[in-house]
Amino acid sequence: MKNDHLPAPGPDSYEHERYMRAALVEAAAAAEADEVPIGAVIVHRGRIIARAHNQRETLKDPTAHAEMIALTQAAAARGDWRLHGCTMYVTLEPCPMCAGALVWARLDRVVYGPADPKAGACRSLYRIADDARLNHRLEVIAGFMEEPCRALLQDFFARKRKTATNGYP
Amino acid sequence: MKNDHLPAPGPDSYEHERYMRAALVEAAAAAEADEVPIGAVIVHRGRIIARAHNQRETLKDPTAHAEMIALTQAAAARGDWRLHGCTMYVTLEPCPMCAGALVWARLDRVVYGPADPKAGACRSLYRIADDARLNHRLEVIAGFMEEPCRALLQDFFARKRKTATNGYP
Repeated sequence: MKNDHLPAPGPDSYEHERYMRAALVEAAAAAEADEVPIGAVIVHRGRIIARAHNQRETLKDPTAHAEMIALTQAAAARGDWRLHGCTMYVTLEPCPMCAGALVWARLDRVVYGPADPKAGACRSLYRIADDARLNHRLEVIAGFMEEPCRALLQDFFARKRKTATNGYP
Repeated sequence: MKNDHLPAPGPDSYEHERYMRAALVEAAAAAEADEVPIGAVIVHRGRIIARAHNQRETLKDPTAHAEMIALTQAAAARGDWRLHGCTMYVTLEPCPMCAGALVWARLDRVVYGPADPKAGACRSLYRIADDARLNHRLEVIAGFMEEPCRALLQDFFARKRKTATNGYP
């Protein structure tokens, strides 16, 4: 069985790319549903055990970020809330809620796309995912495949602005 | 309709006490189910619109803290993820995940019992609930009715330790 513990993404990061592309497919599905396009997948031993996208508006639920839904799915798939040995790939730096949830779920690693200067809680505003004071720490890989992740977000908000002004930006 | 915006708890804090007692009833239900006893309620215009307790083990879900379940319930009750005008009463200082969720849900206020020096994210380790850098800030009332909240937690862990040692502490 494929080992999930790949080296940190580098020139030879085909596997990481494959998983981040799966997260991007989720993010695109969010945009399709008129949700802020953020997607996440969770990988355990080379297998994707959770795929989710932001559904805050659809579910009318403030907690329905991609990462939270993916964590609940992965715990169901594993039959345990402890997700040791798992990696999350997510298309934006997790917020305090999601970074906190990653710690409680005891994942090994989080790989994310662009930083979120407004609410990022792995590096930007807080460093929750690997805070030595909490009872678990994840390996954090920031800025992986930033460009396609960012492009999806930028396109979404550009379209929103256009709609908000009746097509006249 | 009763206004939810009571003054901060003081000598004349009967209403706050009533809501915190409802959160304590939830915490006791958690203990009964062998879950760490933490309970939360959400109040809107004098009415409790959500009551929940920690269900991490029961649901095998790392995100199933009392606060998260209560937020999802309250959003369903209101038909909107925005919980302006709402107050949460919770029997322990919220963690990063839950404090982050309170901000995203845009509650007016959080009232909690004892501080959590190991994971508290309103005052102890972080100040997420009223961080000026995030897009919403709650009023934070810390240390309200600490004693009964703490007693439930202490009894639970004392009983756990006793069981773990076959009744010989």
